[in-house]
Amino acid sequence: MGGNAWEQNYSQKVKTLRPSPIREILNVVKQPGMISFAGGMPAPEVFPVDEFFLDSTMIKAQGAEIMQYGTTEGDPRLRKFLAEWQEPRLGRVVNDKEMILTTGSQQALDLLGWVMIDPGSVVITEDPTYLSALSVFVNHGASFVTVPMDEHGMVVEKLPQTIEKIRAEGKSPKFIYTIVNFQNPAGATMSVERRQQLAEISERYGVPILEDDPYGYIRYDGEHLPSVFSFDKAGNTIYAGSFSKILSPGTRIGWVCGNENVIRQLAIFKQFTDLCSSPITQALAYEYCKNGYLDSHLPVIIDNYRVKRDAMEKSLIKHLTPLGVTWVKPEGGFFYWLDFGGINASLLAKKALEKQVAFIPDEPFCVQKELGERFGRVNFTYSQPDVIDEGVRRLAEAISEIKAGH
Amino acid sequence: MGGNAWEQNYSQKVKTLRPSPIREILNVVKQPGMISFAGGMPAPEVFPVDEFFLDSTMIKAQGAEIMQYGTTEGDPRLRKFLAEWQEPRLGRVVNDKEMILTTGSQQALDLLGWVMIDPGSVVITEDPTYLSALSVFVNHGASFVTVPMDEHGMVVEKLPQTIEKIRAEGKSPKFIYTIVNFQNPAGATMSVERRQQLAEISERYGVPILEDDPYGYIRYDGEHLPSVFSFDKAGNTIYAGSFSKILSPGTRIGWVCGNENVIRQLAIFKQFTDLCSSPITQALAYEYCKNGYLDSHLPVIIDNYRVKRDAMEKSLIKHLTPLGVTWVKPEGGFFYWLDFGGINASLLAKKALEKQVAFIPDEPFCVQKELGERFGRVNFTYSQPDVIDEGVRRLAEAISEIKAGH
Repeated sequence: MGGNAWEQNYSQKVKTLRPSPIREILNVVKQPGMISFAGGMPAPEVFPVDEFFLDSTMIKAQGAEIMQYGTTEGDPRLRKFLAEWQEPRLGRVVNDKEMILTTGSQQALDLLGWVMIDPGSVVITEDPTYLSALSVFVNHGASFVTVPMDEHGMVVEKLPQTIEKIRAEGKSPKFIYTIVNFQNPAGATMSVERRQQLAEISERYGVPILEDDPYGYIRYDGEHLPSVFSFDKAGNTIYAGSFSKILSPGTRIGWVCGNENVIRQLAIFKQFTDLCSSPITQALAYEYCKNGYLDSHLPVIIDNYRVKRDAMEKSLIKHLTPLGVTWVKPEGGFFYWLDFGGINASLLAKKALEKQVAFIPDEPFCVQKELGERFGRVNFTYSQPDVIDEGVRRLAEAISEIKAGH
Repeated sequence: MGGNAWEQNYSQKVKTLRPSPIREILNVVKQPGMISFAGGMPAPEVFPVDEFFLDSTMIKAQGAEIMQYGTTEGDPRLRKFLAEWQEPRLGRVVNDKEMILTTGSQQALDLLGWVMIDPGSVVITEDPTYLSALSVFVNHGASFVTVPMDEHGMVVEKLPQTIEKIRAEGKSPKFIYTIVNFQNPAGATMSVERRQQLAEISERYGVPILEDDPYGYIRYDGEHLPSVFSFDKAGNTIYAGSFSKILSPGTRIGWVCGNENVIRQLAIFKQFTDLCSSPITQALAYEYCKNGYLDSHLPVIIDNYRVKRDAMEKSLIKHLTPLGVTWVKPEGGFFYWLDFGGINASLLAKKALEKQVAFIPDEPFCVQKELGERFGRVNFTYSQPDVIDEGVRRLAEAISEIKAGH
C-alpha cells in the first residue's frame, strides 16, 4: 500500500493478483547473450513486409474511411473473406452476423469473460492450458474444473463425469475451453474421434464449447483436421481464430465465429472495452488477403518453422535424451512440452537463466498445481537452428548441474 | 433465454444490461436522408490522409519490428514524443514509466475499472457525463455519486461535502471522474480556479482524480487552460488523452499519464485484455508526429470545426430561439448541449427521427435521471454548414409539432 491515493484505493483484483513468473522471465530475456525459448513470438524473418504494406496508393484511397471510427464488428470485407477462407475448417461459410473481429484473440477471451462469467462461475479447461486464458477468466471471477490431456488432446471421455460432478455440487459449467490444434503449452492435437465426441457431449449436456485455434494453420506434418465447430450440429461451439501466427501479431486482429446472438453480446461488451479495433490494420490485412498472399505466404512460414522444429528435435535428442528428458514431437504450432522427469521445472528455469537460456516452467499453465513442476514449454519458432542447438546445450548443462546437486 | 447453450449461460452482466438508446439511434442514422447530430465523429475531410500514410518506404523499413507483438506500454518513441508535446498542458515532461498507450481512450477507462473498481465501489462523476464511462464503470461494479455542473464545469465547491457524505455512509470514493475541457455532453469548460481547487480537495481528502481530456486541443476561442494534473502537487491525478479527435480515431491510440505504480498496474491488466495495442498504427502515428504534422495540421481541424460551430450557432438562433430553446455556446469540442425547457427530450428525439434528424437525449448521460429529460446533445463537427441548417430546421419542426400536441 503506497502513499499515492490511487494505490490506496486499488481494487481487490490488484491486491490479490499473484506475481507472474512469465513477466519476470520475459524481463530477463531482454538481456544480451540470453537465448529465449520463453515467448511465443513469430520469427521476424517470415513477416511478409512488402506484401503487407505494398505501396501506399491503395491505402490512401481508403484513408478518410479507415481513419474514422470503425464498426464494432470489424471491416465487413475482411469478415467476408475470412468466412469464406475458413469454410474447409468450419464446414460452412458463417454469415455476416456470426463473426466479430477483436483486438487480437486475447480480447476474444476477455469479451467472453464479460458475456459469460460471474464471480464463482465454473469453466472447464484442459490442464495444462494457455496461461493468459486462465488469467483473464480468473479476473472475471471464474474457477476451473479440469480435464486431463494425453497425446491426443483433452481426454474427452472424462468429460461427462466431470460435468455431472460439477452439477452434483449445484454448479453449472459455463463453457468448455479447448485448444484442439498443437495445444499451448502441451503441443498435443485432439484426434478427430474426440472432436466429434466433444461436440456430442456438448449437445447432450448443453455445455457450450470455446474452440481456440491460433495455431491451427501452422501444421508441419499430416493433414488438417476438421474443427469441433464443424461437428457441432447444435450451434453450441464458438470458434476463435487469429492473424498473430499466420500473418502478424502487430495487426492485433483476431476473430470469433458462432451463434449470432452471442456475437451481438460480444459486440456490446466490445463497445465498452475499446469501441472498435483499428480499421487501418483491418484494411491492410484485407488487401493482403484479397491479393492472395494469405494462402501464398503461409507455406513460407510453415517451411521456416518446420526447419526449426526439426532442428530442435535433433538438438533435444542429442543433448536431452541422455538426461532422461522426454517429449512428443509436435505436428504443428510453436512449442515443445518437455517432461523433465524427476527435476523441478521452476528450479530448472532459474538455473537455466544463469546459463543464459530461458523457457517457461509448467506452473503458470497448470490449474492443478500438484500435477506439474516437471514440465517446461520451449518455443522453437523464434530462434535460428544454430541458436536453438546452443540453447538446448545450455539447458542440458543446467539439468546436469541440478542432477549433480549444484 | 434462447435455446442456445451459450445464451442459457450468460453472465449476470448480460442479463441486467439495459438496452442502449444510443445503439438504437445509431442504427437508424444509417438510413438514407437522415441528418445525424447523434454521433461524436470527426469530419472525414479533416483527416490528414497524405501526411499520415506518406509513401510506404519508411514503414516497410520498420516492417519486421512493427508486425511483431509490441510492448504492452506502447511504442517508446511515440510515448516520448507525447510526453514532450504535452508539457505545456501537464506542466512537466512525464517520464517513460509514467505513460501507457491504450487501444483508444475507451480502453483507458476499462483498465482503470479493472485496477480500481470492485462491486459496490463509489465513483464521483459530473452529472451529466460521458455515457460510455458510466457504462464501463458500471460493468466493473461501480455506483455513482454525482456533483452538478454549471457553465464553469463541475461545481467543485460541493465536492468536500459530497466526499464527507460518502464517508459518513461508510464508503470510500475510488476516484473523481472529470472531463474538464468542453465536457461531453454538457460542453462546459472548468475554470482555472476550480481546477486548482479540485487538485487541492483531492490532496486534502486523498481522493484521486481521473482527468479525461479527449477534446482539450480542439479549442475555437480563448486560451488553453492548464490541466488539473499541472496543479496537482500530490501526484493524485491521472490524465487521459487521445488521438481520436486531433488525428484519427482509426489509429485506436489513447494514452494515460500518471503515477508509475498505477501505470504498471494498468499494463498488467492490459496484458489480460488485449496483450498490446497495434505497433503498426503507433509507428504510423509516431512518424506523423515526428514530421511535425500534429502541430501543423491541428489548425486545419480547428478552423473546419469553428466554421461548423458558428454555422450551428447561427442556425440555432434562427430556428430554435423562437421556440424557447437555450444553450451556452461551446468554446471547443464537438457538442452543443441544448435545453429544450418544458419538452421531454426522449420524446423529442423520437419525433426528430421521424423528421429525419438525429440527436441524443440526455437520459443516457445522466446519473440522476430526475435531473434530465430536458436536454439534448447535438454534434456539429460531422455535417457541413448547409446540412447543419437543414437539420436544425427539422429539429425546430419536431419541437413545434410536440408543442402543438401532435
